[in-house]
Amino acid sequence: MAEQLSLAAVRDALIREEDSIVFALIERARRPRNAAAYAPAAGADDGRSLAEFFVREAEVLQAKAGHYQKPEDVPFFPQDLLSPLFPSKGYSKVLHSFASSVSVNDAIWKMYFNELLPLFTVDDDDDYYAETVALDFACLKALSRRIHYGKYVAEVKFKDAPQDYSPLIHAKDTDALMNLLTFKAVEEKVKKSVEKKARIFGQNVTLEDGADKQEGNEDDSVCKVNPKVLSELYDQWVMPLTKDVEVEYLLRRLD
Amino acid sequence: MAEQLSLAAVRDALIREEDSIVFALIERARRPRNAAAYAPAAGADDGRSLAEFFVREAEVLQAKAGHYQKPEDVPFFPQDLLSPLFPSKGYSKVLHSFASSVSVNDAIWKMYFNELLPLFTVDDDDDYYAETVALDFACLKALSRRIHYGKYVAEVKFKDAPQDYSPLIHAKDTDALMNLLTFKAVEEKVKKSVEKKARIFGQNVTLEDGADKQEGNEDDSVCKVNPKVLSELYDQWVMPLTKDVEVEYLLRRLD
Repeated sequence: MAEQLSLAAVRDALIREEDSIVFALIERARRPRNAAAYAPAAGADDGRSLAEFFVREAEVLQAKAGHYQKPEDVPFFPQDLLSPLFPSKGYSKVLHSFASSVSVNDAIWKMYFNELLPLFTVDDDDDYYAETVALDFACLKALSRRIHYGKYVAEVKFKDAPQDYSPLIHAKDTDALMNLLTFKAVEEKVKKSVEKKARIFGQNVTLEDGADKQEGNEDDSVCKVNPKVLSELYDQWVMPLTKDVEVEYLLRRLD
Repeated sequence: MAEQLSLAAVRDALIREEDSIVFALIERARRPRNAAAYAPAAGADDGRSLAEFFVREAEVLQAKAGHYQKPEDVPFFPQDLLSPLFPSKGYSKVLHSFASSVSVNDAIWKMYFNELLPLFTVDDDDDYYAETVALDFACLKALSRRIHYGKYVAEVKFKDAPQDYSPLIHAKDTDALMNLLTFKAVEEKVKKSVEKKARIFGQNVTLEDGADKQEGNEDDSVCKVNPKVLSELYDQWVMPLTKDVEVEYLLRRLD
């Protein structure tokens, strides 16, 4: 995020994250479910799955390279990480200092593997497990970053109306905070937007197509990921989890 | 690739790889050039760059997870790799046994960093180097896989007309083989196709857009990656390097 935090900048970032999520799911959908990659594996310690092995090790590598310095980049296995070999200059501190510790990654992990994956992958096995878990990692990262951007959303909204938020924060009134953060009309637009992106980015582009094909008006079943899965993902999980992040951030905002 | 090798299956795979390449470049274009990630770095051995450190380590991890078993998945640093901790069942042998050793990755590496990157990234620095090199790795992998699919293209073409290829292979007539593998009309279509994909996948989707926006007919300068970069990438590098792979494969096809 830029030094200057504005609602417009945060919204632009969230819109761009939608593209990354849609791309990542489309790429994962190239492979079938490959359930064996999520079962306890002989090659791993403690009967971990290949997926868990891969995500843990990939996060260790990314941390060495200097990743996970920004509050929206939250590791799934923070206990494993070492200090960066390639430290960055340090990121601007537009958020409260505890922001990095706000994480809903456990919920994202369970949601992704238990709920989402069966909705957009074919129940089959092609033995390409290593590629599959690398694609899962890209999906998890994109979802996690989008959801943890909620920290910036919360900060912007708080700065905009501290008089509305402060009493609720002092009263630890989670429900009232959640209400204050919820804009049904905006959420409906976001759901329509990601659905449209899945339709456009997931189509089979050929040179012969006319304008109607590009609009993605044809049968959704030929899309690489069903567009309805995207609106459901946002409705059921991405937006609620983002608001959980916002509330968790706000509850400690006045500490 | 499937057990049954057909030109239709190989073409479908190549078309799907186009999507992956376009997605990967669009994602990389989120970040500016970040030239410091490609300069000798203090944290690395032997004055390696962060980019080289990251790709080497990421390949080691992917190999542990069982990657690089397929002839189209070719590592950039094969000498560093260990045996997989998670071996796969083994892939079908539709290609000649030396296929895995055919690699043009050195040329892809140089092309990507020296030629391509300046064409589609803004010359600036945002200090997000770890993310940048992870995005580079995704681009390199997608390009490398597309180009090394040339092994399957060559095998299909050889099987289709061994009488045409065999004398040229025996004569080691590289130029004649290259001619036999070149179809200008097909290449022009592929260039148009990737350009169109960049226009469609790289647009800024909003709910208000009509059909013309979806077709991507507006000014290319608002696309996240200039569509002309994609046609140039295919014209100058992807298709010539694919044919280099095809020729290298064919020259040893009768060993």
